[in-house]
Amino acid sequence: MEQIRGSQSLAFAHAPYIVSAASVVGSKESEGPLAKFFDMTNQDDLFGATTWEEAESNMQKEACVLALGKAHIKAEEVRYLFGGDLLRQGIATSMGVEALHIPMFGLYGACSTSGEALALAAMSTAAGYGKYMLAVTSSHFGSAEKEFRFPLGYASQRPLSAHWTVTGSGAFVVGDVKSHVRIAGITVGKIVDYGLKDSQNMGACMAPAAMDTIVRNFADTGRSEEDYDRIVTGDLGYVGQSILFDLVKGKGYDIKKKHLDCGMTIFDQETQDTHAGGSGCGCAAVTLASFILPKIEKGEWKRVLFVPTGALMSTVSYNEGASVPGIAHGIVLEHC
Amino acid sequence: MEQIRGSQSLAFAHAPYIVSAASVVGSKESEGPLAKFFDMTNQDDLFGATTWEEAESNMQKEACVLALGKAHIKAEEVRYLFGGDLLRQGIATSMGVEALHIPMFGLYGACSTSGEALALAAMSTAAGYGKYMLAVTSSHFGSAEKEFRFPLGYASQRPLSAHWTVTGSGAFVVGDVKSHVRIAGITVGKIVDYGLKDSQNMGACMAPAAMDTIVRNFADTGRSEEDYDRIVTGDLGYVGQSILFDLVKGKGYDIKKKHLDCGMTIFDQETQDTHAGGSGCGCAAVTLASFILPKIEKGEWKRVLFVPTGALMSTVSYNEGASVPGIAHGIVLEHC
Repeated sequence: MEQIRGSQSLAFAHAPYIVSAASVVGSKESEGPLAKFFDMTNQDDLFGATTWEEAESNMQKEACVLALGKAHIKAEEVRYLFGGDLLRQGIATSMGVEALHIPMFGLYGACSTSGEALALAAMSTAAGYGKYMLAVTSSHFGSAEKEFRFPLGYASQRPLSAHWTVTGSGAFVVGDVKSHVRIAGITVGKIVDYGLKDSQNMGACMAPAAMDTIVRNFADTGRSEEDYDRIVTGDLGYVGQSILFDLVKGKGYDIKKKHLDCGMTIFDQETQDTHAGGSGCGCAAVTLASFILPKIEKGEWKRVLFVPTGALMSTVSYNEGASVPGIAHGIVLEHC
Repeated sequence: MEQIRGSQSLAFAHAPYIVSAASVVGSKESEGPLAKFFDMTNQDDLFGATTWEEAESNMQKEACVLALGKAHIKAEEVRYLFGGDLLRQGIATSMGVEALHIPMFGLYGACSTSGEALALAAMSTAAGYGKYMLAVTSSHFGSAEKEFRFPLGYASQRPLSAHWTVTGSGAFVVGDVKSHVRIAGITVGKIVDYGLKDSQNMGACMAPAAMDTIVRNFADTGRSEEDYDRIVTGDLGYVGQSILFDLVKGKGYDIKKKHLDCGMTIFDQETQDTHAGGSGCGCAAVTLASFILPKIEKGEWKRVLFVPTGALMSTVSYNEGASVPGIAHGIVLEHC
C-alpha cells in the first residue's frame, strides 16, 4: 500500500514512462498556433473515409500506428490498450483500434478520457502487467456536432461560451522502458456537480471538477502550485479558466502563473472564431503529444500536472433537464 | 512480470477477493427463474424516478449501497469505482454513482462491461492501489429500447434472434480482504469482427468474441474445459450459444457440458416471451451476483470462467452500414 497518497492519488514506486506519443489532427487545427508540432494532418477532415465516424476511427488508428512506430514496437508487443472517444457507445474507438488486435479496455470520461486512459495505462505498467500499454483518445468536429448538436445546415448560432470540438487523436505508448518523461503519479477524479445545466457552457460545468482534482492533488501529495512548472487543463476555455482561478483561490492557492489550458492553446481565438476554445477527447491528447511532452522531454518543464476535464452529459440527459456534472483526472508528468 | 500468462491473461500473485455483491432488478426479472435470489426488486421499473434513465441510475446507486452494506464498509473506504452502462455517454453510471463521491473510471464495453469493471477492479486491488474497489454495471429495458430501437408504441415486431434487455444492476466490492471467492486471474478480450451486421442478432455477433476469449484463456493458462466447473457467458442467448459451441469445437474443445449463459438463465424462454434470452450490462452482473457467486462461495463450483460478452455498435454505426464486432473479457473465479 506504499503507493497510496491521500484519498485519491497514487505515487508509483516503479514509475512508468511515456515511451512515445503521436498526434493526428484535422484542417482547422493545422492552421492554428500548434500547426508545426503535429505529426500528421488531413486537409478534408475525412481521413479517407466517407463518414465522420469512420474518419475519426481512421484518425485514431493512424495515431496508434504512429505512436507504435516512434516506440519501434509492433502492435502485438502492446499488452493492453485503453481508449475512448465522445461518441455514443464509443464507436470511434471500437472501429478505430479493431484492426490492431490488441486486448482492450473501452473507456468513457468525456473530454477527461485522455487522463483516464493514461492513468490506467500507467497503473497497469507500474503493476507489472505488461511492458507496453497504449492509451488513445479522439474527437472529431463533424461526428461531435452530429452527436450533440443541431445539424450544421440549420446554421444555429453558437454562444460565445461554446467550444469548438477539436478534430484530432493523440496516442501514447506507456511502458517500462526509460524515456525522458515519467508518469510519477495520478489523482483519480470524482464526479463534481455544481448543478449547472448549460451544455453550451462546458467550461463552467467542468471548472469545479478541475479545481477539485487539482486541490486534491496538492493535498494528497503535499505540494502546491510552486511544485509544478505547469498545471494543464484539457478544455476549460476562457470562461472555465476564470472560474477555475476563482475556485482554486477560494481554497488558498493561486495557479494563474502556472496554468495552461489546451483548449485555449490549440486555436487562436481571435482569428479562428472558436469562441471559448477547443474541446473534445482529442484536444488535451494532441496538445499533450505535440506541445507539452516535448517541453518536458527537453527539461524545459520539470514537473507538470496534466488535468483533462470532462462534462458528463448526453442529449438525452440534457433534454430531460439533468445537470451537467464534471470529472477531471490528474497525471503527474516529470522530466527524467 | 511473473503475473503475465500468455498473450492476454494475468494470474494474480496476490489474488483479490470478491468481498460482497448485490443485485437490483426490475419486475420481469423478479418473475423469472432467479426471482428468489435477487436482493431487491421494483415492480414499476421506475425505482422512484420519472425517466427510464434516472430509474437506471437509481437502480445502480442502490446496488452499490447494498454491496457496500454487505461488505460493512462506507463509500469513502472504496478507493476507486469502475462502472458503466449501455447508454450514450454512460449517463446512467455518471448520474448513478455521483452521490457516492468515489473517484471513478467510466467504462464502455457494451454487455461485456461487468467483466471489464471486475478486471480493472481486480488489477487495481492486486497491485496494492487500494484495499477496496467497487465494480458496477447496469442496463434497463426502457432506457435501452429508447437508446437503440424504435419507440415501443410503434409495436414493431422483434425477431426470434433478438434479446430482451435486462432491467438490473449488479455491484461488486473487490478487495484485499479474504472471502470465499477470489479473482485468480483475467483474460482481457480483443475486438473480434466476423463482419456480421444484424443488430437484432447480437448472439451471432458476440459468439466469435466469446470463443476467442475462452480459447485464449485455455491457451494462456494451460487449461481446458475440464479445469472449470462452469464456463459462463453473459448474454449469447440460444442463437449465440449454438454458434459458440461450433466455433469452440473448431478449436478442439467441447464446452457443452460446462456452459451456462446468463441471458438464458435469467428468463424463462417459454413463459416470458424473451426470444433469444436476456441481455444488457445488467444481465451478466445480476446473474453473477445472485446465482453464480453463492455457488462458488459454498464450494459447489470450485472454479468458474466468467465471460461477459459485448456487441460494439451504436444506432449511428448501424445506420451507416458498419459491422457489429464483439468483445468478451474473462474472469477466473475460484472458491477459497
